[in-house]
Amino acid sequence: MKINSNYFNLKESYLFANIAKKTTEFSKSHPDADIIKLGIGDVTLPLCSAVINAMQNAVLEMSQKDTFKGYGPYQGYDFLRDSIKKYYNDRKIEIDADEIFVSDGSKSDVANILDIFSKENTVLIPDPVYPVYVDTNVMDGRKIQYINANKDNGFLPLPDENIKADIIYLCSPNNPTGAVYNHEQLKKWVDYAIENKAVILFDAAYEAFIEDKSLPRSIFEIKGAKKCAIELCSFSKTAGFTGVRCGYTVVPMDLEFDGASINKLWFRRQSTKFNGVSYIVQKGASAVFSKEGITQITENINYYKDNAKLIAKAVKDKGIYFTGGENSPYIWMKCQDKMTSWDFFDYLLEKTHIVGTPGSGFGKNGEGFFRVTAFGDRDNTLKAVERLKRL
Amino acid sequence: MKINSNYFNLKESYLFANIAKKTTEFSKSHPDADIIKLGIGDVTLPLCSAVINAMQNAVLEMSQKDTFKGYGPYQGYDFLRDSIKKYYNDRKIEIDADEIFVSDGSKSDVANILDIFSKENTVLIPDPVYPVYVDTNVMDGRKIQYINANKDNGFLPLPDENIKADIIYLCSPNNPTGAVYNHEQLKKWVDYAIENKAVILFDAAYEAFIEDKSLPRSIFEIKGAKKCAIELCSFSKTAGFTGVRCGYTVVPMDLEFDGASINKLWFRRQSTKFNGVSYIVQKGASAVFSKEGITQITENINYYKDNAKLIAKAVKDKGIYFTGGENSPYIWMKCQDKMTSWDFFDYLLEKTHIVGTPGSGFGKNGEGFFRVTAFGDRDNTLKAVERLKRL
Repeated sequence: MKINSNYFNLKESYLFANIAKKTTEFSKSHPDADIIKLGIGDVTLPLCSAVINAMQNAVLEMSQKDTFKGYGPYQGYDFLRDSIKKYYNDRKIEIDADEIFVSDGSKSDVANILDIFSKENTVLIPDPVYPVYVDTNVMDGRKIQYINANKDNGFLPLPDENIKADIIYLCSPNNPTGAVYNHEQLKKWVDYAIENKAVILFDAAYEAFIEDKSLPRSIFEIKGAKKCAIELCSFSKTAGFTGVRCGYTVVPMDLEFDGASINKLWFRRQSTKFNGVSYIVQKGASAVFSKEGITQITENINYYKDNAKLIAKAVKDKGIYFTGGENSPYIWMKCQDKMTSWDFFDYLLEKTHIVGTPGSGFGKNGEGFFRVTAFGDRDNTLKAVERLKRL
Repeated sequence: MKINSNYFNLKESYLFANIAKKTTEFSKSHPDADIIKLGIGDVTLPLCSAVINAMQNAVLEMSQKDTFKGYGPYQGYDFLRDSIKKYYNDRKIEIDADEIFVSDGSKSDVANILDIFSKENTVLIPDPVYPVYVDTNVMDGRKIQYINANKDNGFLPLPDENIKADIIYLCSPNNPTGAVYNHEQLKKWVDYAIENKAVILFDAAYEAFIEDKSLPRSIFEIKGAKKCAIELCSFSKTAGFTGVRCGYTVVPMDLEFDGASINKLWFRRQSTKFNGVSYIVQKGASAVFSKEGITQITENINYYKDNAKLIAKAVKDKGIYFTGGENSPYIWMKCQDKMTSWDFFDYLLEKTHIVGTPGSGFGKNGEGFFRVTAFGDRDNTLKAVERLKRL
């Protein structure tokens, strides 16, 4: 029995293990230090009451024979897909319920969608980037082409006609940089994809953080996108579902490659390799898009965004270059005095007892940059901001 | 962009769609017919109270900041892995918590585990079989070797030394046949796997239905299995979790191929392509293996098994050959008068208003056989048994 030898090509990922190790060591040698963690990409606010109530009711339903739910539809229950469809319709985007696939989260989706694409495709990945896009393709043995995101392009790279690609990864608002594409920029990508007969995997995990109404929250706001794009969405950051696990992909009926319907292929993959999302979770997810749910999650998202604004202001006042901080929960800042990312990590931890994420962990263009997140406590964020000011 | 052309090699699966279609048509032309569905492999009893209470508490925890849970460990929470470890220890099997990987169900696991194995491997699949084993390998383009399960071997095929295979699928108690391997038979498979440097994927989804204490409930009861087998387990049939979604794989630390640790590879796959199971679901799953939980699920499993015994007795009294009916929720019966599976389906529906599953849907050796399930209502089961007697 032979293993998938592509696994030998994976880089060991020590980023978060190293962060944890250094933090623990610092904590041991400085037991009185009040360490503030602004590195984690995890939410901290509890689930909103609309979701809690929906899930409590769903658990009760599961306790009674006549309301008990067994296997659900592979693509997700109608009540949830209709809620998601409405969420798009309210933003003037027409999507059919059959174009929506409910899942246990967009990490699974962004990985599993690759099953339906040939290994022979070239993927185009921005650098810096969420490492999963890279690793999942290394596991499949695909050729990876990187495109540079950097200060020169405001971490918003545009297509290079000289590069041919088949699968294009775009994440906007971006993890780790917080940068957000505008309509014109996304149109360039859609045109490039159509020109190259390529598919765009558009990661919209942070779309709910956009407050600038001129900025697109869905790739499907762009003309032509239904012919070349798949959108990946998540309840994780939108509704605090990091521990609940729910997301969805939108795969337009118009999407065809090799004479095959991508929607049909994805359905085949999911109906063969997956058995749907927990009924209780789907009930909770559906409540997110109720009138009450929208009000409550907006409150929570604003809480995180206000954290982001506080951090962004402190960084700006210090004259440090950064992206993000608005329309995003991330602040992507230049390291001071030409320090490397890890040197800056050590420096920040030493001087301010703040833990962040070294940008070099996200790719070569992340070297010399640093990611700070706005998902923490307001009090801790204010404390962190004061310490940053005194740096 | 090229799609994964292996998808063109998939057979369209019409089995359950055709069953649904014929049932609906019959219902329309016979509006007074009291149709009894004994074809579905879905549970009907609600979740037990230990699980309900655990999940209600977990939902409450998610509503409070200080008990809220975000991202959990990729492999599953310690509290659940420790429960599973104890479930094995109580059956005299030593497993470490690190050998346990919690998932959203064994359908996902049996599919996703293939990611870590080379496409160049030959898989050995029994016929008849749960179609997912076949389809997932067609999607990967692997060579499939079938091994015959039939009346001659009591639907319990043993290794053929002349067939070389790298990945071996065993499901015991079996879906669809309900047949159960004994220790001696499984030892032959373990010896064969070790001889061939092959891995066994042991699907133990129905292990909780075994009441004959001489029969193995885990592949790890067999000497040598830790060097060649992965066990796939599910809360679906054990605890009625078909709509809750939870399962686990056991990947021994001793399992190595190509100089690589399979446990490490699976961890890499899961930590890259998956983000863990819902906290609420894991809390429910952990309650299954509490003292209270075990008592309650045993009651439910016995309810289904008593259904199975009633059906099995009726089939036996008619002098019809069958496997299953004990130690399993399935009865796999020979179709009368040399009818084909679909002819028998039509005959049964016409004469008794009972819906079952044509065996031909599970492979060529299923032709002339028929699967009936014991997951239904007791009253309906008794009614069905009366109708079968009058056939």
